[in-house]
Amino acid sequence: MNAVPRIVCDSLPASRKVHRQGSIHAGVRVPMREISVHPSAGEPPLVVYDSSGPYTDPAVRIDIERGLQPLRREWILSRGDVEPCEDRAMRPQDEDLGAAIAAATPFPNLRRPLKGRAGSACTQLAYARAGIITPEMEFIAIRENLGRERGAAGARDGNAWGACIPDYVTPEFVRAEVAAGRAIIPANINHPESEPMVIGRNFLVKINANIGNSAVSSSMAEEVEKMVWAIRWGADTVMDLSTGRNIHTIREWILRNSPVPIGTVPIYQALEKVGGLAEALTWDVFRDTLIEQAEQGVDYFTIHAGVRLRHIPLTASRVTGIVSRGGSIMAKWCLAHHRESFLYEHFEEICAICRAYDVSFSLGDGLRPGSIADANDAAQFAELETLGELTHIAWENDCQVMIEGPGHVPMHKIKENVDRQLAACGEAPFYTLGPLTTDIAPGYDHITSAIGAAMIGWYGTAMLCYVTPKEHLGLPDRNDVKTGVITYKIAAHAADLAKGHPRAGDRDDALSRARFDFRWEDQFNLSLDPDTACAFHDETMPKEAHKAAHFCSMCGPKFCSMRISHEVREEAARREGLEQMAEKFRAGGGQLYVRADEAG
Amino acid sequence: MNAVPRIVCDSLPASRKVHRQGSIHAGVRVPMREISVHPSAGEPPLVVYDSSGPYTDPAVRIDIERGLQPLRREWILSRGDVEPCEDRAMRPQDEDLGAAIAAATPFPNLRRPLKGRAGSACTQLAYARAGIITPEMEFIAIRENLGRERGAAGARDGNAWGACIPDYVTPEFVRAEVAAGRAIIPANINHPESEPMVIGRNFLVKINANIGNSAVSSSMAEEVEKMVWAIRWGADTVMDLSTGRNIHTIREWILRNSPVPIGTVPIYQALEKVGGLAEALTWDVFRDTLIEQAEQGVDYFTIHAGVRLRHIPLTASRVTGIVSRGGSIMAKWCLAHHRESFLYEHFEEICAICRAYDVSFSLGDGLRPGSIADANDAAQFAELETLGELTHIAWENDCQVMIEGPGHVPMHKIKENVDRQLAACGEAPFYTLGPLTTDIAPGYDHITSAIGAAMIGWYGTAMLCYVTPKEHLGLPDRNDVKTGVITYKIAAHAADLAKGHPRAGDRDDALSRARFDFRWEDQFNLSLDPDTACAFHDETMPKEAHKAAHFCSMCGPKFCSMRISHEVREEAARREGLEQMAEKFRAGGGQLYVRADEAG
Repeated sequence: MNAVPRIVCDSLPASRKVHRQGSIHAGVRVPMREISVHPSAGEPPLVVYDSSGPYTDPAVRIDIERGLQPLRREWILSRGDVEPCEDRAMRPQDEDLGAAIAAATPFPNLRRPLKGRAGSACTQLAYARAGIITPEMEFIAIRENLGRERGAAGARDGNAWGACIPDYVTPEFVRAEVAAGRAIIPANINHPESEPMVIGRNFLVKINANIGNSAVSSSMAEEVEKMVWAIRWGADTVMDLSTGRNIHTIREWILRNSPVPIGTVPIYQALEKVGGLAEALTWDVFRDTLIEQAEQGVDYFTIHAGVRLRHIPLTASRVTGIVSRGGSIMAKWCLAHHRESFLYEHFEEICAICRAYDVSFSLGDGLRPGSIADANDAAQFAELETLGELTHIAWENDCQVMIEGPGHVPMHKIKENVDRQLAACGEAPFYTLGPLTTDIAPGYDHITSAIGAAMIGWYGTAMLCYVTPKEHLGLPDRNDVKTGVITYKIAAHAADLAKGHPRAGDRDDALSRARFDFRWEDQFNLSLDPDTACAFHDETMPKEAHKAAHFCSMCGPKFCSMRISHEVREEAARREGLEQMAEKFRAGGGQLYVRADEAG
Repeated sequence: MNAVPRIVCDSLPASRKVHRQGSIHAGVRVPMREISVHPSAGEPPLVVYDSSGPYTDPAVRIDIERGLQPLRREWILSRGDVEPCEDRAMRPQDEDLGAAIAAATPFPNLRRPLKGRAGSACTQLAYARAGIITPEMEFIAIRENLGRERGAAGARDGNAWGACIPDYVTPEFVRAEVAAGRAIIPANINHPESEPMVIGRNFLVKINANIGNSAVSSSMAEEVEKMVWAIRWGADTVMDLSTGRNIHTIREWILRNSPVPIGTVPIYQALEKVGGLAEALTWDVFRDTLIEQAEQGVDYFTIHAGVRLRHIPLTASRVTGIVSRGGSIMAKWCLAHHRESFLYEHFEEICAICRAYDVSFSLGDGLRPGSIADANDAAQFAELETLGELTHIAWENDCQVMIEGPGHVPMHKIKENVDRQLAACGEAPFYTLGPLTTDIAPGYDHITSAIGAAMIGWYGTAMLCYVTPKEHLGLPDRNDVKTGVITYKIAAHAADLAKGHPRAGDRDDALSRARFDFRWEDQFNLSLDPDTACAFHDETMPKEAHKAAHFCSMCGPKFCSMRISHEVREEAARREGLEQMAEKFRAGGGQLYVRADEAG
């Protein structure tokens, strides 16, 4: 890890980290971001959801070799249902260290992993079902309220398509949603550094950013830095999709430094372990990989257990076949062995592993459509039915579950995806990639998919997996990650607004007031990406004095509607004043002068 | 015009200009773009709509000092209802030539303007009502069919929300839609250089790009080049929103070189003529400006005649007041004079001018919402009712009309905009700006608005006005114009797909087949922006050899789902072959060897 790029740890402009304390659990301290505005506005700071973790907290010294503080450790231990377990010592094949590849610097401060005691279920779902409000649940309740007080709900506006979003989120509400399976809290007991968050359609819509090297490019050091970069701009979870060498060590560095849940697709590493030959995969290798990753602290696993032998022929006439990497690997395995996959056959055993560490399931849509032509086809929906069956098995095993969804879907077929998923999977949270609403714009698939993501988020998807401008073309770099995250924050927020999430519009309103008042700095600071907003403005009006100008270069001073609108208001007020005076004059009997003590 | 930047005239990659002849009118010759694919695909070239005009035709020599060929001139003259009119000689104030500003180079090849004969109505609406299929209508019918033959319609897929999109567009269908007021053909008799196009919800969704200098930056030369640049990437119409000096001459150069309809907001120039003081505007100045612009050939006018005195108080409690430039100017005028605007009071006279040159109305939404908080409010919908009244007056005067729409609207309030517009305005085409679905992302408003644009296009908006990344921040440059156009082509195409426009999916399917076959060059060439797609790919895999690689750097070779998917198909085919052989073996009585002449 010699070449770690600088981890960006500055606060965002005009922002400070604040914390709200829990009242049920004393140790609960929920970070939020306060954005202050110019005193002339006479407005309190705006509180926004903050996924960036301690990196934007000047009070915290960041040392990636130590990792973040394990804030949940005490909560986990105090429940008394876990114990240190025998570490499954790292093996060379975990790193794919063939040939003469140098070993990566191991993370210097490894902890001994924990595991649920035999017979216990240390999952948030099990606690919720037992009526226990965990510190994680209280943390989440405070976090989801964005700093608002109980009873402060105003008029609600929106169409939530059957979702039941409360005016105020209580810890009990969080517990009940988790207990019902409608929400999950991805929180591996071996990832105590994570700040609890919830994924469910009665909460704020979340976004995931994928990072990860590939065999062709990228380095370990870049991945840690990319994770911090992704959460700085708003990623709620991060999936580490690394497939190259040093995969175990990269993951360790990411987990120890990540305040957000980390997801993986364990079949990728398992495939590396068997030399990249899908047919050589075995249950033993896969099982061992699950334990390896669960001990490290991965919070959710994508498991493509829904790809069944009988589904594969349904993909034969597709335009783009099977486009999920995990799906194609499992389909190849199934065909080569002509039997159901070990994921499907050993699903209960997978549940046992997930339960022992509280790893949430993200049931993968291995047969998702990869083109508009293949959307909502028989293969896709056949797999969805299987995912529904697996959801219920996972629930029987006290495991948390969400369901992955497509992909490429034209607008008129998006809602059916949500409706069918909710029905087939008992309202387990939906987690979709986009969907892309057309195939014709490689290089702009963050946009083709933002359209679908906003809509599917509105209809009920709980978490949106981002798509970057490089989708279909290459590995995203740092700028692409940022563009993808900001684009998906837009989609998620547009969905929150349309669902009528209480106070989602506060930020829109604060920014629009700043815009109308020509408070340019406030407009930048309240935006999702202050740096870009300011840079774009300064391209044509760079001077500091222009930050107070009552126009911008788009329309120029004479044609600024906002400026004229202010004049209209002044004129209207003046007229109203005149009319009131005239009224008073008439009421006063038309005398031109009144005694001074009568004038008001 | 010394500093005109190079006009980009290259063909797009793998593309050639083709023409289809009309059968009713011999002179009709409709340009399209054919994109060829690699011979290995065994596919015919893909025909796509082509808005780029002669600039992408290597057979045409471009000379912007001569302007484009006036292809419609003969059609216009042969109708026998127009005559050359006395040129309203240019005046200094047309150019805002105060102080010591140098005059711009006049366009060297001015034509004498035409005007409808007294008593005649030379509008496409009048012809359509009279049962006449004009060459413009036949041109459009061929253009909208994207080269497909009658009777070739396949299965239809989509939800058109009440639109009636035919399998095949006939000239008679175009005529009937125009006659019903459901579609317009913006085609000023003084802009014979334009290639006819249609705006209506039963046709392909169109997009508009705004160009124009502002008092703060930009030059005349850049504007001509920006127009050519905008249509190269797909703008169907261009609005010239120039507000600075040399406004008359800039417009002349743009019109003489534009193959797409040009729209303007005449009040901008009128305001310049009275020194920028809204209250100094008069009907005479405005009327003179309309005639000036109609003689030059402007194809549609945005007229904010719906801003009535009684609507203005409805904006008082808004977060962002009046954000339309024209709306704010008229509101100011109304308040200052305390009377209805001259646009409203003289609307019939405006109709008479529009009829004499066939200038289409784009009835402006002067009170559109400028923030999420103000969406769908009383002011907006009150104005919409007035726009409905004006639509019917325009129709009575044989004038073509479309209606402008918002603006800033959260997703759940978008559909109401279309439903109300269709009802209030008798199904006149809707033309919306975005709408932006959230206010919190300045710097990314092409994306916040692409979400709303795709949805409102699906619901029935006929033309989408683009928004660039610089919206709210500054004047868009060349790159911003391209980004805005491509983003809106995505939105319009996503809408066409969802409406179930016949063959809209052909391009998606062709590109997806190329993707699945690893025909990288085809994938780039079939995309909306081949340059960007190729550049992104080459960032990580620059070599020519990589253009044939069966993977990209996103996943690397081992994890390429498309590659594995091919292997799955081969495996499945092999298995099927084996099973067929086994079947034959069993059917043949189980003999291990059969006579050679029996084997098939």
